[in-house]
Amino acid sequence: MSDIITAGMVVIGDEILSGRTKDRNIGHLAEMLTAIGIDLKEVRIVSDDQDAIVEAVNALRERNSYVFTTGGIGPTHDDITADAISAAFGLPCEHDEKADTLLREHYARREMEYTSARRRMARMPRGATHIDNPVSVAPGFNIGNVYVMAGVPAIFQAMLDNVIPTLRTGTKLISTTVPCKHGEGTIGAPLADIQSAHPDTIIGSYPKYQDGSFWTEIVVRSRDQAKMEAAVKAVEDMLEKL
Amino acid sequence: MSDIITAGMVVIGDEILSGRTKDRNIGHLAEMLTAIGIDLKEVRIVSDDQDAIVEAVNALRERNSYVFTTGGIGPTHDDITADAISAAFGLPCEHDEKADTLLREHYARREMEYTSARRRMARMPRGATHIDNPVSVAPGFNIGNVYVMAGVPAIFQAMLDNVIPTLRTGTKLISTTVPCKHGEGTIGAPLADIQSAHPDTIIGSYPKYQDGSFWTEIVVRSRDQAKMEAAVKAVEDMLEKL
Repeated sequence: MSDIITAGMVVIGDEILSGRTKDRNIGHLAEMLTAIGIDLKEVRIVSDDQDAIVEAVNALRERNSYVFTTGGIGPTHDDITADAISAAFGLPCEHDEKADTLLREHYARREMEYTSARRRMARMPRGATHIDNPVSVAPGFNIGNVYVMAGVPAIFQAMLDNVIPTLRTGTKLISTTVPCKHGEGTIGAPLADIQSAHPDTIIGSYPKYQDGSFWTEIVVRSRDQAKMEAAVKAVEDMLEKL
Repeated sequence: MSDIITAGMVVIGDEILSGRTKDRNIGHLAEMLTAIGIDLKEVRIVSDDQDAIVEAVNALRERNSYVFTTGGIGPTHDDITADAISAAFGLPCEHDEKADTLLREHYARREMEYTSARRRMARMPRGATHIDNPVSVAPGFNIGNVYVMAGVPAIFQAMLDNVIPTLRTGTKLISTTVPCKHGEGTIGAPLADIQSAHPDTIIGSYPKYQDGSFWTEIVVRSRDQAKMEAAVKAVEDMLEKL
């Protein structure tokens, strides 16, 4: 195994936990990280509560190469992510001069008042660097190994596109999908044997339920092409015999 | 405030963390719990790894009235939820006699072999009670305050329908949504004042971004009808003055 880079994600927002808003950022981040060879190890969804955010961010940043957060960086009173991240790092949360200028000029150009609420969006932990927001200007930020981004999917995706090229990436996990007309009950035992015989691969099986019957997708993953192919061949041989 | 019942959720599965499968159970559970007055406080998505599952389940079951898990109860080698939940409770994981009989008869009726893989689905912590599975027979289970259910959405939803009527429910959180044509930057400061003046309500604002401009949904929540209505009126009065 080569260099393994891991990540955690913290999704911040009462609206996700109440079911009012359906999260669309977890799946997007997961796909993007998989594509560049970073393993997403854990996601936590927490409420707009400083203690909850601090606990989740500190737990995940200690055990992962990177942590990505979404949500809670807007201008209203329940947007407390900048405060919580500052608290997690033991840093003061203050108006960032560059962000303040950026926002002041943005609202001046649009002839809109630069309210104290809008000015909240210039706050970040001292020493943080910006994550550019090409959609609505107010920046995300990076401090330590934590990347703080917006919850609105269009803005989150635009910010993430700016972050991705700056990340140290791992050896990409490659995968092959083998469709299988049998349910998991039929292939479970032989698949476990194949997994044991191919330790440098990760073999998953995903039950699909459609029109009253089960079929399965078998996915073989590895960081090594030859090892993946050997395991795929073992799966195909097993299926042929069924 | 009356009786507050809280819940945690643990979503188990590498396929969610790789982005290969998009979770559809978090939003469904969140909506169902909100509807019956249970507060979902935290969700964790963890990989098919026993230590990760045990840590998440033990953390959440200690601080919540209920914990709901999805995923990892199928017949294959990577389905380790029954083992992990047993380990979390310090109980032996064994074949449950009633589940074993249920599955044996089910496969006999369909003239399918009752393989050792299928028999894995009869395993649960000693002393667990079944959660009936009207879709594909293999039961979920309940032990202590933890409810272990399938990851396939159709099966998860059917199991949850059996669990919901057995739960102690809280005083339902009621909510009113006030649409607002202004962005959060305009309403942020007055909304914070209204929140301060109405402590027994939870006022959230949710930015919507469409066709290049922002508008906002303001949601006022409370367990008390009169307090909610008072806060809604304050929000409406504020919006009229803008």
